[in-house]
Amino acid sequence: MSADTTDAEARERLIDLAAEFYDQFAAGQIPEMTLPTRSKSNIEYDPESGVWVYGDRTSTRSANSVRGARKLLKAAYTIEFLARQLDEDRSSTLRELYYLSESWDAEDAHFSDQDESNQLVEDLEIVSGVTREDFHMRPEESGATLMGPLLIREQTRRGEREIHCQEDVGEGGYQIPNNPDTIEFLDHDIELVLCVETGGMRDRLVENGFDEAYDTMVVHLKGQPARATRRITKRLHDELDVPVVVFTDGDPWSYRIYGSVAYGSIKSAHLSEYLATPEADFVGIQPEDIVEYDLPTDPLADSDVNALESELDDPRFTTDYWKEQIELQLDIGKKAEQQALASRGLDFVTDEYLPERLSEMGVV
Amino acid sequence: MSADTTDAEARERLIDLAAEFYDQFAAGQIPEMTLPTRSKSNIEYDPESGVWVYGDRTSTRSANSVRGARKLLKAAYTIEFLARQLDEDRSSTLRELYYLSESWDAEDAHFSDQDESNQLVEDLEIVSGVTREDFHMRPEESGATLMGPLLIREQTRRGEREIHCQEDVGEGGYQIPNNPDTIEFLDHDIELVLCVETGGMRDRLVENGFDEAYDTMVVHLKGQPARATRRITKRLHDELDVPVVVFTDGDPWSYRIYGSVAYGSIKSAHLSEYLATPEADFVGIQPEDIVEYDLPTDPLADSDVNALESELDDPRFTTDYWKEQIELQLDIGKKAEQQALASRGLDFVTDEYLPERLSEMGVV
Repeated sequence: MSADTTDAEARERLIDLAAEFYDQFAAGQIPEMTLPTRSKSNIEYDPESGVWVYGDRTSTRSANSVRGARKLLKAAYTIEFLARQLDEDRSSTLRELYYLSESWDAEDAHFSDQDESNQLVEDLEIVSGVTREDFHMRPEESGATLMGPLLIREQTRRGEREIHCQEDVGEGGYQIPNNPDTIEFLDHDIELVLCVETGGMRDRLVENGFDEAYDTMVVHLKGQPARATRRITKRLHDELDVPVVVFTDGDPWSYRIYGSVAYGSIKSAHLSEYLATPEADFVGIQPEDIVEYDLPTDPLADSDVNALESELDDPRFTTDYWKEQIELQLDIGKKAEQQALASRGLDFVTDEYLPERLSEMGVV
Repeated sequence: MSADTTDAEARERLIDLAAEFYDQFAAGQIPEMTLPTRSKSNIEYDPESGVWVYGDRTSTRSANSVRGARKLLKAAYTIEFLARQLDEDRSSTLRELYYLSESWDAEDAHFSDQDESNQLVEDLEIVSGVTREDFHMRPEESGATLMGPLLIREQTRRGEREIHCQEDVGEGGYQIPNNPDTIEFLDHDIELVLCVETGGMRDRLVENGFDEAYDTMVVHLKGQPARATRRITKRLHDELDVPVVVFTDGDPWSYRIYGSVAYGSIKSAHLSEYLATPEADFVGIQPEDIVEYDLPTDPLADSDVNALESELDDPRFTTDYWKEQIELQLDIGKKAEQQALASRGLDFVTDEYLPERLSEMGVV
């Protein structure tokens, strides 16, 4: 995966895939497509890149059954659609692709549900090494917003736009486009990238001027972050050489949000090098903070306990730090939201909590 | 409710409420607060404003029980907090208010859960006639985005920003701030405001340049629209004197989205005049369109059928138009998403569907 795949290159890689089916036919072989097996047991840590990637196990889609042949037919139609889309500089959503298949002449090529078309596009990403964004496939929901000392240039269909992410935007911030690789970073004063889970906390940091006081780029994650949000976070880290920290609620679901920013997800392990920021650190809310700051809490539900226990087995959380924090949380049986810091006043988070935590972490 | 309530006025109305408790005490009366009863049976159509408002039934919160006294104590503390917040030109979220109550000295004033604090803020809106936004209470999640021929000036904490919602924004558009009354409309070429439910369709319209071709302001509703999104839609209609239409999926939940834009909701009937745009028309997806354009569909689930049947009784849907459409949908037993129009090609929605529907409706 590379950020600078051009439309022509993406198109060529797709056509190469179709050409491979053709060559297999021509050589009298049954066409097939080989993919890494996409299960938890087949993802492993790659020490070189510092992210989780697929292991060596593979699965094969072969035309030696009606079901397999239909899958390859759908792949061929989808490749044709994507190649034309790139040719015409158009784009579309995954859902549009699903519906659009209804207009294809071969009825066997119609997708039976959207899971099938989504899965196929992921398969094509994996075998072609080109991201969905480079196929011009848009997600249903766009990324979140940025607020911080960064001047960008965005290539839009209507021409170039130069936007400063503090001075040229309203209080809502700069809306990350679906494909953040249309953005170029022109100039910046960023010392720290702070990814924030909730809208309420993002607004608190902006109202309190944390982005100005600490030269911080505030990235709103908006819950589980969209691909566009993870991608721009990685680019900020890699291209500007600045630290990235993640600030979420203190519960197992939020630790997964941190995990998906830092290490990627099983579902998109093929994209880890493109989306994951392994250097990203976790600020909190830590179970330790719940105790130390005596935060208002809710009791852990059974589903929270199960999720914490399964995190103890998750290769992304097998560090001493996470083992200690998760065991502490199971022990105290409590969770806390990031906005619970307001129980100590509206400025506590920006005047005390974040400065203390960030200096402990050696970030500021 | 008025858009131009100043901070000083909002503060004064809150202090007036507290003064009323004081006067009741001073006169030897048990303090109480009277509110309209907030149930479906107590909302009624106001022909003058064209929206649904509370009827004549009222409920009284009195300090003649421990429970009631505690409610009024919480109200007094909340009023004090809000008055100080306005004084200091700060703001906060509903969730922060809930947590902040933990820091109040009277333990009886702490909120027991967030429903309680949310409800109290709504009560204060109703009795004071000042909106939550004018108390500087922010929602958890911000509004959606705008893309269209409009130049605005936003008052931010960092000064004024002039932003053109096509020329000065990226493909993601202009992010609506939490309180859209900080925006002034400076100049525009808007002929039509088109509110769109899904992100995929919003992106389709922008990619196909519908906003440019039809001088249209595309408002992304993002599912059930936030208050900020409904407020700005109403302001676009009222201040610029332009038609508003709503474009959603073709299912009962989406008709409710239209309903909340046009007529307001039971929960916020006290805000209808501030948030609702009764002149807003429904474009589709109409059940009629499912038949006419032979769209790909899903069968109605039991919950869909129940929701449609309850809409037949909902005062917001008692027109001949809705009766006909809902009965047709129950009859065919199907629903369709707006992106299902892609089954006729990616340009069908902008080249045929919308122009046809809008000209049928007399809008373009």
